Amino acid sequence: MAATNPILRKILNPRSVAVIGASENDAKFGGRVMNFIIKHGFKGQILPVNPGSREILGIAAYHRIADAPGPVDVALIAVPAAQIPATLDECGNAGVAGCVILTADFAEVGAEGAARQNELVEIARKHGMRLIGPNCLGFINPGLKLALTSSVALTVEPMSAGFIGLVSQSGSLMAALISHAHDHGTGFSAAVSVGNQADLEICDFIEYFLEDAATRAICAYIEGLKDGPRFLALAARCRAAGKPLLVVKAGRSDAGACVTASHTASLAGSDAVWETVCREHAVVLLDDPESLIQCADFLIRYGAPRGDGVAALSPSGGTIAVTADRIAAAGLRLARLSERTRRALHEIVPATRPANPLDIGGLAREQGLDSARRCYELLAADADVGVMLIVVATTPQLDDKVRLWGELAPACGKPTAILLTPGKLVDGARATLRELHCPYTNRMDDALRVLKAAINYGAALRATREAPVMPADFGAVETFSASAAQLTESEAKALLRSAGITVTPEHTAVSEDEAIWAARDIGYPVVLKISSRTHTHKSDIGGVELDLLNDDAVRSAWRKIVDGVVKAASGHPLECVVQPMVKSGNELIVGCKWDTQFGAVVMVGAGGIWIETLRDMRFALAPVTQNHALELVQELRIWPLLRGSRGQPRADVDKLADVIARVSWLAAKFGPRLAELDINPLLVKPAGQGVVALDARATLRPPPC
Amino acid sequence: MAATNPILRKILNPRSVAVIGASENDAKFGGRVMNFIIKHGFKGQILPVNPGSREILGIAAYHRIADAPGPVDVALIAVPAAQIPATLDECGNAGVAGCVILTADFAEVGAEGAARQNELVEIARKHGMRLIGPNCLGFINPGLKLALTSSVALTVEPMSAGFIGLVSQSGSLMAALISHAHDHGTGFSAAVSVGNQADLEICDFIEYFLEDAATRAICAYIEGLKDGPRFLALAARCRAAGKPLLVVKAGRSDAGACVTASHTASLAGSDAVWETVCREHAVVLLDDPESLIQCADFLIRYGAPRGDGVAALSPSGGTIAVTADRIAAAGLRLARLSERTRRALHEIVPATRPANPLDIGGLAREQGLDSARRCYELLAADADVGVMLIVVATTPQLDDKVRLWGELAPACGKPTAILLTPGKLVDGARATLRELHCPYTNRMDDALRVLKAAINYGAALRATREAPVMPADFGAVETFSASAAQLTESEAKALLRSAGITVTPEHTAVSEDEAIWAARDIGYPVVLKISSRTHTHKSDIGGVELDLLNDDAVRSAWRKIVDGVVKAASGHPLECVVQPMVKSGNELIVGCKWDTQFGAVVMVGAGGIWIETLRDMRFALAPVTQNHALELVQELRIWPLLRGSRGQPRADVDKLADVIARVSWLAAKFGPRLAELDINPLLVKPAGQGVVALDARATLRPPPC
Repeated sequence: MAATNPILRKILNPRSVAVIGASENDAKFGGRVMNFIIKHGFKGQILPVNPGSREILGIAAYHRIADAPGPVDVALIAVPAAQIPATLDECGNAGVAGCVILTADFAEVGAEGAARQNELVEIARKHGMRLIGPNCLGFINPGLKLALTSSVALTVEPMSAGFIGLVSQSGSLMAALISHAHDHGTGFSAAVSVGNQADLEICDFIEYFLEDAATRAICAYIEGLKDGPRFLALAARCRAAGKPLLVVKAGRSDAGACVTASHTASLAGSDAVWETVCREHAVVLLDDPESLIQCADFLIRYGAPRGDGVAALSPSGGTIAVTADRIAAAGLRLARLSERTRRALHEIVPATRPANPLDIGGLAREQGLDSARRCYELLAADADVGVMLIVVATTPQLDDKVRLWGELAPACGKPTAILLTPGKLVDGARATLRELHCPYTNRMDDALRVLKAAINYGAALRATREAPVMPADFGAVETFSASAAQLTESEAKALLRSAGITVTPEHTAVSEDEAIWAARDIGYPVVLKISSRTHTHKSDIGGVELDLLNDDAVRSAWRKIVDGVVKAASGHPLECVVQPMVKSGNELIVGCKWDTQFGAVVMVGAGGIWIETLRDMRFALAPVTQNHALELVQELRIWPLLRGSRGQPRADVDKLADVIARVSWLAAKFGPRLAELDINPLLVKPAGQGVVALDARATLRPPPC
Repeated sequence: MAATNPILRKILNPRSVAVIGASENDAKFGGRVMNFIIKHGFKGQILPVNPGSREILGIAAYHRIADAPGPVDVALIAVPAAQIPATLDECGNAGVAGCVILTADFAEVGAEGAARQNELVEIARKHGMRLIGPNCLGFINPGLKLALTSSVALTVEPMSAGFIGLVSQSGSLMAALISHAHDHGTGFSAAVSVGNQADLEICDFIEYFLEDAATRAICAYIEGLKDGPRFLALAARCRAAGKPLLVVKAGRSDAGACVTASHTASLAGSDAVWETVCREHAVVLLDDPESLIQCADFLIRYGAPRGDGVAALSPSGGTIAVTADRIAAAGLRLARLSERTRRALHEIVPATRPANPLDIGGLAREQGLDSARRCYELLAADADVGVMLIVVATTPQLDDKVRLWGELAPACGKPTAILLTPGKLVDGARATLRELHCPYTNRMDDALRVLKAAINYGAALRATREAPVMPADFGAVETFSASAAQLTESEAKALLRSAGITVTPEHTAVSEDEAIWAARDIGYPVVLKISSRTHTHKSDIGGVELDLLNDDAVRSAWRKIVDGVVKAASGHPLECVVQPMVKSGNELIVGCKWDTQFGAVVMVGAGGIWIETLRDMRFALAPVTQNHALELVQELRIWPLLRGSRGQPRADVDKLADVIARVSWLAAKFGPRLAELDINPLLVKPAGQGVVALDARATLRPPPC
């Protein structure tokens, strides 16, 4: 493992801390910070700086940072925005390693603020000094009892030390999570609010935590990344190191808001690409900030589950009935217990009850504790059980049972979610679990979210994938050129052909008569489609006529398309393509796009009229192997139709996977030049009969000069 | 409103309570019950009965119930199962109004226990006495300070009185909810555990709560109903009375486990029918027991929302970003604020921030409280805002702001979910909200679940629907008869024809040559299908051959089908139907089934090969109006394809709705006789061209003699 960035290590683990703008007044940032530093018991050197004070809260204060004894590892700056450049310069001159700038009013308020922010970075760079913020809430390092933050969260709570490294783009979310973690008996190696990330950014802290021995899981709240590829590389290192990386990515619901020309690009919004990236890199992507802490705590305590079978037990029959429904609704799988496990369980509970989920209520009281232990052990020992869920209901000997399970769980080797839904009634049980450092949740939603995240993380860790190899016949691709970035259908198909993908033959026609000649040449039935760089969604403007059986049909189709184009008020001269009408297959869409954050992405989904209705698609970072492509296809909801069932023949999924792999290589080879490409529909014929691209569109920017 | 069942009112509001099997020993049921009665301060008469005691816990005890001074309103029975019949008889002789039987080991353990349970009911009937239980945990009536239960939940908690009536088929769930409610500052008019429902059952208590002025919302945990139609009638009365009825129905995930012959029956599992029933009757159906209490509390406090637009505010930008994502993911709609509201809000918060959800963080501190008030008031006053969501983050003046919102919310007329995610940091705010009787949640999942349930409840209350009228040409239906319950395709189509539904013409053929003659008569292309009472899923056994263009095709299709049937090892002589090949339309499924619990149910969904893949279907209780049928169609995910878009013509949805209504009338007219019926596929042609049933199957039992 590489050495941690030494300056960052120094900043987060300082021996001496300066507070510039220190005060005794709790209503001011600089006062609150001073109070927290003292209250939480930081044992290093504390250097308050204030031009007007000789002493603050009983600690010697300095007029200027230059007067303070060095070296200063970190200076927290809580002065008005206008004074910050001069303050930074003074810090730089005094040899301060890093500054934390709480002050707001920089890049977050617009271009003028961004310019002032750049000025700060320049000053820091000049001195070789690093910055956290501006517009942040600082950080805490509970191991050092250091609360270098103005967040009111630190007013009430003691800080909990623990094994979670937290980096947050929102200060108040960091604060809420500090409180939430304390409440659940877990804590942090450090928690950092990065603010505007003028200098140090999220990935710097992920890297720090990755290399920090005290950190066993990394949590990140992300609104936007500065460097996508760096994030991917760090995620790969986290995976290799077995250190879980958990992320909440905000701003996912606006996906698709931007205008794009292809389906792939419009469907591959930030949400879909983030999900893909996280799945492929074993990053635990969550929708809820508090669950970052819950899942991290669970993975730290138990490691990754080795299977996806869930076994549940509860001393309440009603609770077990609800639990069975919720497990099914969450898409989790109840473990199929072995006959041996079942038999052993049914020596303890009546054979009329299902073995999983298991209702252990109403057993003979004198054997209550022993039954609770045996049932847990039997379930946990079953080979198909990957994780356990204990739902604690009101029951005799409740506290004793919870203590027993809390002690058993880490010993039995199966990650165990413990759910305590009642209120104060189980406060004693909660305290017991906190004392045992045993994760628990108060809501079924959280228990299932934690189990699902852990199971998926385990599966992502186990997944192995060969390196993609470019198809041997893929040489000619790079020589392809077109006269404009927005390709016509014919050009897009030529590009596909050069990549070894079968497309329908077609003729271009600029008049009714030419269209008829072309149709006769191809043989009826045919399709007539408008050919245009501008009308990419041809059927929306009535630009597609299918299944034309004879000359008359072609003639009337031509006129309809003319009408359509006239309605769409286009001034372009009309040009159409004629191609054979091909049927008998499943219509899919295969495409790719260049994601500005993470690079080339390939997609497969239900095509044709089903795209918007089903939104059934899978993405992967390009390039992919044919096996990986096949996995994507098998994850589609329409997979049963392709696999063959209910009188449907099996589709040629091998050729489909081949096309996906080829498109992914197009995306990888052209890089940012190939902004987007769709094959829609790609007709997938029955097994052995191949696949054929019926239509295609693409945006391929010219190579840089 | 009808007078409440007077005996039930007496039992739940007793002036005198006997405990049979009373004891001082807390480890025994009869001891725990006595302790709870005394501890919680019941002011009525307490009559411990125990053959060996003259006094229990300082209260005069009686050897037999006959010795106790009457009248006794309720007797709790905590004696071994074998002694219960004699005990009941004594209670009956002593004129006890009702008995609560905690003891287990009756119907829940099998047939022999069920027989013993029936004996108890007979004894009670003989005396005109009512029973709660057996195998229950009793009830509480916090208004009377009466805890007539053995649940350990009452050890720790004081009982909270409130406006929620709770009836639970699980005793330990009742106990957990008592604790949960107390923790959230809400409580009960009464909470009852019904156990095996030998006599008094869930619906009796729903009716009691419906007529009880102290109850403002009714919560029920249900595993199975004894009387579906009674439940529906009570739900209708609850709706009319404006008293919300909230239900968790357990055992939903086993839907489809039973073997059925039609798609409709297999898809219309208990889950789908329950959802339908609840939606049509404005019953709030939830998946989580604790959310029963949360939603009931919310509806009691605020009433039903008058619109579905959500406005959210938080003093944390990060929280607002996450909230926007979660609202979208939950399928809720952010309110579209008026220009006036936007302008007014942007006088308070920077115009660079979105107006909804609204980030009110970082505003000038001196105006913090006032801004928090104004922003809430402006959002709540907007016409498109139906509900509010306040996400409380760590912020200066947190307690004051929460108090302000807690006071504003009931006054501003917009139901408001308040979410407090941090831990102990906001315990003060939680206490404030409890003091103000202002509902809050600790998790986003719960806040969204409450809002969604409340919005849907409001919409269900507002929905008005005309009474269905039978189609005028519907007379001949009842004369239909067939030689066996499992109809052949031809018989099923004849049934449809008699109901005024268009079906494809068809000829039956028993040989290759007959099939060819029939095909020529109909005109190519044709379809050849096996005709059979036993093979209802024809395509699964290769019994369907489509798009046959000529004699040769029919001949080879015939042989394929013979092969298929031979493979399926059927001994029946082969009979096929020949029908025209109809294309150019959307394939739907329309069907009905008789639900043993709730009666006739009609269904429409995506048909053909899409049924299992999409599982896109809607149900309604039959009969339905054509307008209601159209609503069902518009709720399908494939609706955009039927509505017409992307080059697809609009489908003949009026004729589709007509067929759904007609099928619903078939279901209603035949009642339980028509066990199930499928039209699959029903081809829905472009608007004006009608719909046609291409295939059908049905199970129609003969009329009772």
